[in-house]
Amino acid sequence: MLRVSGFMGAAVAAGIKYKDRLDLGLIVSRRPAALAGVFTTNEVKAAPVLAGIERLRTGRPHARALVVNSGNANACTGAAGLADVRETAGIVAGSLNVAAEDVLMCSTGVIGVPLPMDRIRRAVPGLVAALAGEGLEDVARAILTTDTVKKTALRRIDVGGPEPVTLAGMVKGAGMIGPRMGPPQATLLAFVLSDALVAPAWWQGALERSVADSFNRVVVDGDTSTNDTVLALANGSAGNAEIDEGRAGEACESALRDLLRDLALQLVKDGEGVTKCVRLLVRGARDFHEADSIARTVAGSPLVKTAFFGEDPNWGRILAAAGRAGFPLDQDAISVAVGGADIVRGGRGLGPQAEALAKKAMERAEFTVTLDLGLGDAEAGILTCDLSSDYVRINASYRT
Amino acid sequence: MLRVSGFMGAAVAAGIKYKDRLDLGLIVSRRPAALAGVFTTNEVKAAPVLAGIERLRTGRPHARALVVNSGNANACTGAAGLADVRETAGIVAGSLNVAAEDVLMCSTGVIGVPLPMDRIRRAVPGLVAALAGEGLEDVARAILTTDTVKKTALRRIDVGGPEPVTLAGMVKGAGMIGPRMGPPQATLLAFVLSDALVAPAWWQGALERSVADSFNRVVVDGDTSTNDTVLALANGSAGNAEIDEGRAGEACESALRDLLRDLALQLVKDGEGVTKCVRLLVRGARDFHEADSIARTVAGSPLVKTAFFGEDPNWGRILAAAGRAGFPLDQDAISVAVGGADIVRGGRGLGPQAEALAKKAMERAEFTVTLDLGLGDAEAGILTCDLSSDYVRINASYRT
Repeated sequence: MLRVSGFMGAAVAAGIKYKDRLDLGLIVSRRPAALAGVFTTNEVKAAPVLAGIERLRTGRPHARALVVNSGNANACTGAAGLADVRETAGIVAGSLNVAAEDVLMCSTGVIGVPLPMDRIRRAVPGLVAALAGEGLEDVARAILTTDTVKKTALRRIDVGGPEPVTLAGMVKGAGMIGPRMGPPQATLLAFVLSDALVAPAWWQGALERSVADSFNRVVVDGDTSTNDTVLALANGSAGNAEIDEGRAGEACESALRDLLRDLALQLVKDGEGVTKCVRLLVRGARDFHEADSIARTVAGSPLVKTAFFGEDPNWGRILAAAGRAGFPLDQDAISVAVGGADIVRGGRGLGPQAEALAKKAMERAEFTVTLDLGLGDAEAGILTCDLSSDYVRINASYRT
Repeated sequence: MLRVSGFMGAAVAAGIKYKDRLDLGLIVSRRPAALAGVFTTNEVKAAPVLAGIERLRTGRPHARALVVNSGNANACTGAAGLADVRETAGIVAGSLNVAAEDVLMCSTGVIGVPLPMDRIRRAVPGLVAALAGEGLEDVARAILTTDTVKKTALRRIDVGGPEPVTLAGMVKGAGMIGPRMGPPQATLLAFVLSDALVAPAWWQGALERSVADSFNRVVVDGDTSTNDTVLALANGSAGNAEIDEGRAGEACESALRDLLRDLALQLVKDGEGVTKCVRLLVRGARDFHEADSIARTVAGSPLVKTAFFGEDPNWGRILAAAGRAGFPLDQDAISVAVGGADIVRGGRGLGPQAEALAKKAMERAEFTVTLDLGLGDAEAGILTCDLSSDYVRINASYRT
């Protein structure tokens, strides 16, 4: 059960896009909570993302509530879309008797359709009335779109206070997943709630570093959303000494990174049409940028992804994708292993027996692919997946 | 019928991968023909590509024959792969009584498997014996892999000689199509044959410029092959004055570009699983590089491509893809039209009626998509296609 002291949650079916489905959620902290956030770096940003970036820029370090809807991204909706974000925040703030700027909004769903404000206005009173400590699980359900399962994670860590502090996380996202989130600038939505007392600037830095090492290292389809957002609230209910840089900070950041990686793995496994979750490691590169770029190109290759779906250790496609990433390679220095089985050494295939072992590994739902460029010592890992016929079915019919 | 004076062709079923399927072709010019070529810029290059690049670097301006196999790419095959290219060229040259360096080889098919040289050796005598003026059509068949139709084109132009000169072209390629071919450095294989007398340096330049404006502006799946190659032979049989820069050159280059664009269109229409051929135009960019990069990002987006397949004018996906291409955009300046119907203006959707018109256009096998960034005067067009469930089926089972 997802519970964090000092936080309440609730969700209702507001009928934003579908009938009888939870689609409007609210998280409220009983006291001001340190706010940290990262947002999509896509040049096309949804109204709630624009509003969120602006809110973080004000430097006001605390917030009280997050309101979130699914079914509608409120993206490409112009000034009216921004006004809708402000109105929703205002209504929620009024009901909660908190300042409007302390309510943040997130949206996910179809692009280019105005938010049905009449339904949201009607739903807010019921939403606020339903707030409860055990309501956070409902929020984790309300944010889902093409996701098939609710994705949450919980960590408890000792930071020297009277009791362990809690980090709770929830995430949604199945398609349009190739997040590149930046400091105040990821349709991945993820929320982290903690009862820890934290120094706000440290909390923002810890979130940015942890996202860089988790969600930003995930490629489902490689399309970066207009709405990706991670928000983290820490309300200090645990009674610990304020966490800042130092040992407690390291322990807490380590737990935060671990929590986000757990959510990232759940995200990929529930990616649209995903049947294979692949840990791709590019090593032997000259520097991180080269390793990272090549890993992203391989993870985004339709031919590599369909070979994963077909459980085919078709290493020629892996090499071909690496070769078009824009970096000079020595094709005779390249090695490839799948599920620990070496299948290419010195740019040459090791034959059918080696590939049979690799194929065996690919029959599992999770496996590793290691591409060694043989050029240097740098490496980069990406968590990715296959491209299945179900991905095409889901996305050819999403709006209809 | 694909005929060019002074050229003969033949193809046989050598059993390179499949039984009873034409898979080894030969084109021979009765006299030395000016040779021009462009090759893949992928860092991982097949043995015949490495050999072809080396051959063009020698500066020897004429060649006599092209031997080409399907079913095996002879890529990632190391020194042995290069030796196989040389041996095949040598055997063919011996049978034709021409110099070995005047026989070029191209390959397409699976990566990482040695060429079955015993079958090629056995097949060459029959191949040479079958050479005939009407045999070029068989070569166009022999080079196909997952292609479903033979793709050829023919142009005749008056360059002031006693008779018009002929430009004939053939191409294969269905998947791994995102060619970026460069001067002597595309698995697209295309061959151009002409009876024109040409200045070799001009011929190479005309080929490079024409490829840049045709095949290099095509995106099927965006994966760039290890084997892409365009070779052009012009043997002077037409008895015209040598074509170089000037009016005849302009006329000939214009016809060459038109021929390659015709082949490029056939290529996209026969792309793996393709049901929609889309002419994507990005305009209103600040410069060509920006327009081109954004067009390639949109054309490569899995979400945009599946929306094409679903006949869904889901312009939010187009804007989201444009926004992650790495260029600063003004989202409120963007307009989108599909099949001539405006659906987005000033970054805002124009509603269901406009989209209904767009959807109508998308029900056709070919339509246009225009994305206007509203920032400047530069533009770039890309010929692309949808991502269908058949693409996934074809590529999840290609090797098995």
